[in-house]
Amino acid sequence: MYSIGIDIGGMSIKAGLVDENGKILEKNTVKSAATADEVIVNMAKQINSLLDNRGLTVENIKGIGIGCPGAISGYKGVVDILPNLGWYNVPLADRIKEYFDTEVRLSNDANVAALAEALYGCAKGYNDCIMLTLGTGVGGGIIINKKLYEGTECKGAELGHTTLIIDGEQCTCGRNGCVECYVSASALIRQTKAAMLSDRDSMMWECVSRDIEKVDGKTAFSCAKQGDSTAENVVSQYIKYLSESLMNMMNIFRPEVIILGGGICGEGKYLTDRIEQYCERFHYGYKGSPKPAIKIAELGNDAGIIGAAALLYQ
Amino acid sequence: MYSIGIDIGGMSIKAGLVDENGKILEKNTVKSAATADEVIVNMAKQINSLLDNRGLTVENIKGIGIGCPGAISGYKGVVDILPNLGWYNVPLADRIKEYFDTEVRLSNDANVAALAEALYGCAKGYNDCIMLTLGTGVGGGIIINKKLYEGTECKGAELGHTTLIIDGEQCTCGRNGCVECYVSASALIRQTKAAMLSDRDSMMWECVSRDIEKVDGKTAFSCAKQGDSTAENVVSQYIKYLSESLMNMMNIFRPEVIILGGGICGEGKYLTDRIEQYCERFHYGYKGSPKPAIKIAELGNDAGIIGAAALLYQ
Repeated sequence: MYSIGIDIGGMSIKAGLVDENGKILEKNTVKSAATADEVIVNMAKQINSLLDNRGLTVENIKGIGIGCPGAISGYKGVVDILPNLGWYNVPLADRIKEYFDTEVRLSNDANVAALAEALYGCAKGYNDCIMLTLGTGVGGGIIINKKLYEGTECKGAELGHTTLIIDGEQCTCGRNGCVECYVSASALIRQTKAAMLSDRDSMMWECVSRDIEKVDGKTAFSCAKQGDSTAENVVSQYIKYLSESLMNMMNIFRPEVIILGGGICGEGKYLTDRIEQYCERFHYGYKGSPKPAIKIAELGNDAGIIGAAALLYQ
Repeated sequence: MYSIGIDIGGMSIKAGLVDENGKILEKNTVKSAATADEVIVNMAKQINSLLDNRGLTVENIKGIGIGCPGAISGYKGVVDILPNLGWYNVPLADRIKEYFDTEVRLSNDANVAALAEALYGCAKGYNDCIMLTLGTGVGGGIIINKKLYEGTECKGAELGHTTLIIDGEQCTCGRNGCVECYVSASALIRQTKAAMLSDRDSMMWECVSRDIEKVDGKTAFSCAKQGDSTAENVVSQYIKYLSESLMNMMNIFRPEVIILGGGICGEGKYLTDRIEQYCERFHYGYKGSPKPAIKIAELGNDAGIIGAAALLYQ
């Protein structure tokens, strides 16, 4: 059996025909359009193209799964708010069903990525996984017994919006001191810039050709590895924020695996080794606790399509 | 069908014969003994007494469930550490099986209380609940789809050991700034004493007959209700700590119900009203989120027996 997975991004819409082993058989990408109506028309064309190329019809697929950033009401298939595309209250599942008489499932992009990695990616074979995506914001996904857990109205797993420092940095969510304010890529960039401004001799200045606007999520890591002490301080502090956030998740869920996604994970084993060193000192959250595996997401750009298609099997 | 529920406490061991509707048909209590061996012998007598009084044998029961404080390895039925009773690595389930040829299940006392309240108490009828027990420490329980979630090796749901303030108060768990350090009854007492020492004219001094050692979890609440501004500051700050902790759980799980247990819950509706007022300002964690019910545990001292017996149906 096949299903269709669609990954809605800020810049493009990716669609794929996926088999029941999570393998993408065919995929296509279309640039995002100005209005939801246009995107939906394009999406229908993308799906038809996938089916046509394989000589399939809608009867041959289990359904269509869609992963989408922003605020989603998955239980009714509505995109509440998708700021990057200017969407508000778009009944996406119903609109797609006007074109295809099949099941349509919608979920948050972080949830979908977690599902893909848990079923077919770096956490394949495990039952209970927690994923954090370290991007502009911090997304989360909870997989319990190989199933996506989304909570009431599918609004759960906002793992980035849990407190690290009450009364801390102002968060976009309206609260203060959320995990997102300290471990997102944006936060790391902010922390890196602040450290550079406090040390004009740091190697990090050379690294960005003395243009602080060129700082990215790699700047501090790269210079710390070369021995710059100011960069090392940034990385140590970041590892502490991230490890404390992860130990919170360990104490709550005691998952078998923690999956990390997002650009910062390009640091790979260097990142997971340092997280493990930190967590080891605190017994992975609680004395006597089993040690979870800490893994880097491996499906990359395909995770959205694969996870969206997997929604049909949930 | 019946099952036996046993609630191990620091002072006494309670045992009950429970029907499949969570109703206690018969119960008894025995003071805690000096050694694990003695407690186990007593426990066997307690169970036999429950069965004999109803003319039942072990064939008539589904099994024996045990709720226990301390560190538990539920998956192998072992009490790892129970400091109050001086127990270390007691294979409790196996020891009880020497007396009774039936299934024996063991879990953490906070998990067991959550299960009781979710199935038969204040959250009866709901599927997804989170419980926090505000006692000397802060216990937690996660109920998903009417089932207890305990994570790997049944070591999960340490909800009290998640961060409110990184680098904050030293916690018994070895980390800093855990929820437990700010919302336990012990924390409230510490906060109350500190406020009293900073204001010698506070009504709270009269309330405890000028003996600061008499401060308990009610002192600040009682004087705040009577208009004492220093007491009100303690209560406001406590409500903030507690509400932020609960909003973290809301953002993670988006539960239908949050259940609060422990002595502080004697404040009842006054407590839940103030939590709701605080959470309302922050949209219950995230804008557009459904509002969970916030309920006070209602099974009281029976929760341990009822929840332990319910472990057999998990």
